[in-house]
Amino acid sequence: MTDIDDVFNTQTEHEPGWLSPEDLELVRANVPIVYVDAVPVRVDSLGNVTQVGLLLRVAADGTISRMVVTGRVLFGERVREALMRHCEKDLGPIAMPRVPANPTPFTVVEYFPDPQRSGFYDPRHHAVSLAYVVPVEGDCEPTQEALDLTWFTPEEAVSPDVRSQMTSGHDRLIRLALAHVGKLP
Amino acid sequence: MTDIDDVFNTQTEHEPGWLSPEDLELVRANVPIVYVDAVPVRVDSLGNVTQVGLLLRVAADGTISRMVVTGRVLFGERVREALMRHCEKDLGPIAMPRVPANPTPFTVVEYFPDPQRSGFYDPRHHAVSLAYVVPVEGDCEPTQEALDLTWFTPEEAVSPDVRSQMTSGHDRLIRLALAHVGKLP
Amino acid sequence: MTDIDDVFNTQTEHEPGWLSPEDLELVRANVPIVYVDAVPVRVDSLGNVTQVGLLLRVAADGTISRMVVTGRVLFGERVREALMRHCEKDLGPIAMPRVPANPTPFTVVEYFPDPQRSGFYDPRHHAVSLAYVVPVEGDCEPTQEALDLTWFTPEEAVSPDVRSQMTSGHDRLIRLALAHVGKLP
Amino acid sequence: MTDIDDVFNTQTEHEPGWLSPEDLELVRANVPIVYVDAVPVRVDSLGNVTQVGLLLRVAADGTISRMVVTGRVLFGERVREALMRHCEKDLGPIAMPRVPANPTPFTVVEYFPDPQRSGFYDPRHHAVSLAYVVPVEGDCEPTQEALDLTWFTPEEAVSPDVRSQMTSGHDRLIRLALAHVGKLP
Repeated sequence: MTDIDDVFNTQTEHEPGWLSPEDLELVRANVPIVYVDAVPVRVDSLGNVTQVGLLLRVAADGTISRMVVTGRVLFGERVREALMRHCEKDLGPIAMPRVPANPTPFTVVEYFPDPQRSGFYDPRHHAVSLAYVVPVEGDCEPTQEALDLTWFTPEEAVSPDVRSQMTSGHDRLIRLALAHVGKLP
Repeated sequence: MTDIDDVFNTQTEHEPGWLSPEDLELVRANVPIVYVDAVPVRVDSLGNVTQVGLLLRVAADGTISRMVVTGRVLFGERVREALMRHCEKDLGPIAMPRVPANPTPFTVVEYFPDPQRSGFYDPRHHAVSLAYVVPVEGDCEPTQEALDLTWFTPEEAVSPDVRSQMTSGHDRLIRLALAHVGKLP
Repeated sequence: MTDIDDVFNTQTEHEPGWLSPEDLELVRANVPIVYVDAVPVRVDSLGNVTQVGLLLRVAADGTISRMVVTGRVLFGERVREALMRHCEKDLGPIAMPRVPANPTPFTVVEYFPDPQRSGFYDPRHHAVSLAYVVPVEGDCEPTQEALDLTWFTPEEAVSPDVRSQMTSGHDRLIRLALAHVGKLP
Repeated sequence: MTDIDDVFNTQTEHEPGWLSPEDLELVRANVPIVYVDAVPVRVDSLGNVTQVGLLLRVAADGTISRMVVTGRVLFGERVREALMRHCEKDLGPIAMPRVPANPTPFTVVEYFPDPQRSGFYDPRHHAVSLAYVVPVEGDCEPTQEALDLTWFTPEEAVSPDVRSQMTSGHDRLIRLALAHVGKLP
């Protein structure tokens, strides 16, 4: 079961933000869902990105893939809070993510059920995701659905081998993130 | 009737993206809605912003206010398409809006039913809005619900008089937009 | 004696990057100088800016003013290195500045000897300055030429009282920085 | 003779901003030079980048290369003015470049005489360049030193063939520009 299903379904439907399976279907079929994507990175003392963290988990398309931290913004939740919540959920409680002071994402990722629409794919719904680069300073231990977290240098992260382990456009998202921080090889 | 009601309600509910009043209530009560805000500007030949365009219309809170172009992103719609659609709807068919090549908004505006949550207020729902500065080169004529469109210099746009005509945080949005283009007085 | 004079003059002229008074005059009269400006901030655990740090020191125009960290990029020096060097010089060795991963400044400040040219003023030269918001996590103690460092909330930092203590456009730079992080009151 | 030599040398040395060969050497050996880089693009009606324009000319390293519009910011000149001046000089008088309203570059390119320092190389000096994506709407005809201007799709622009025709890191600059506009293949 992937993150979004978990968020949508395994909670009581009486709390705002949590939906019954029927209501979930209704929402997904009618409006774009607000998401956040976080690309975890290690930085040196000057702020240079030295490594990118990729989770190994069941992706939205059902494959086991390398991917970034991703998840829904709940009703009533600030974007920063969602970003922090998903980072803590996927990276563990002592990862110490440094959510940027600037609320502007480095790019806006539009996931569609049609893989051709934007190159970013999600079979479940149309999601508009605000994507951030998030330096993490503490120890990361993948939690919940993630099977593993591996750190890659920028060169490794864009290598054909690692790219072949990513689906749904996440390999392109990594390149956009590395370009944003000036480290695209 | 304001824009969002129009978009949600006055269309057939059978098309994807259009919702019955009941379904609309369900969505609004449970998930944040994806929005775009566009701040129309006039620029000189060097790209300097010389004027900001403000619509006069019925705002989400029911007041007649000066405000920017704003509206929902529909299911299946690209953010750029929504931006262009709302600009054409509010500014008329020959406004010639120049949607920026960069998909990153200059800020992310979080509208909440609770006015204290972020300072940006919408009594109807929680909306996450991607905000863009959009140079327009053609003639603008307000259409549909807008009563008027007036151009202000940056100094005028942040004056107490004009600010007092804006609600829901739109005066702050104008200042953020002017700061983004380096023209905050 | 202000920072730039110090940097230019009080070192040996034989090292690259350090100039004799005559050569300094020649450079200043003929090319724009590359600068960095750093706005030190305190952030909460979610990355929200809660305070802005302002130095009290002799400004370029000779007045004692509140201002941000500012200084020249030396020949052969990376922009990040200059940013870190000036932060450490002005904020002390244990300030722990977090230079952003993204090399893009939040704005480009153009200082001219003519106060009317851009609103940013430096009587000594034309400088093109890359401006960054830099979260600091450690203890700051003003060093060298700075007389004091005071932390202000965003509301205080844009108040008429504090603004009246800034010259050369630094009050406007603070507003641009706060807008960039979504905290302009 | 490349652009920078032209700008520095072939004018009278009595005007501010123009330097004698000796003074030029002094400046180049002691301070970083302020530059602008402009990546000319074609956009569709929604602002999507469809093509990238590359000049064929003698690069700083003496090779005949594909490259972007590039040049110095003069003493007393605004960054926007320099950007427009270089676009007009390289693309011709009816290119109709649309310099962005936002003064923030999409990246800062640091050119060093040492090719290893940043990956961006200029044997003549250390330059700090503000890089912009500039949509052009009119007809382009390469002027002055440029031998040719060719438009490439994003896919072509990052192909091994075109990349092999670029030196000094300009191929990487193109990828950073395409990432910024969300069009990196």
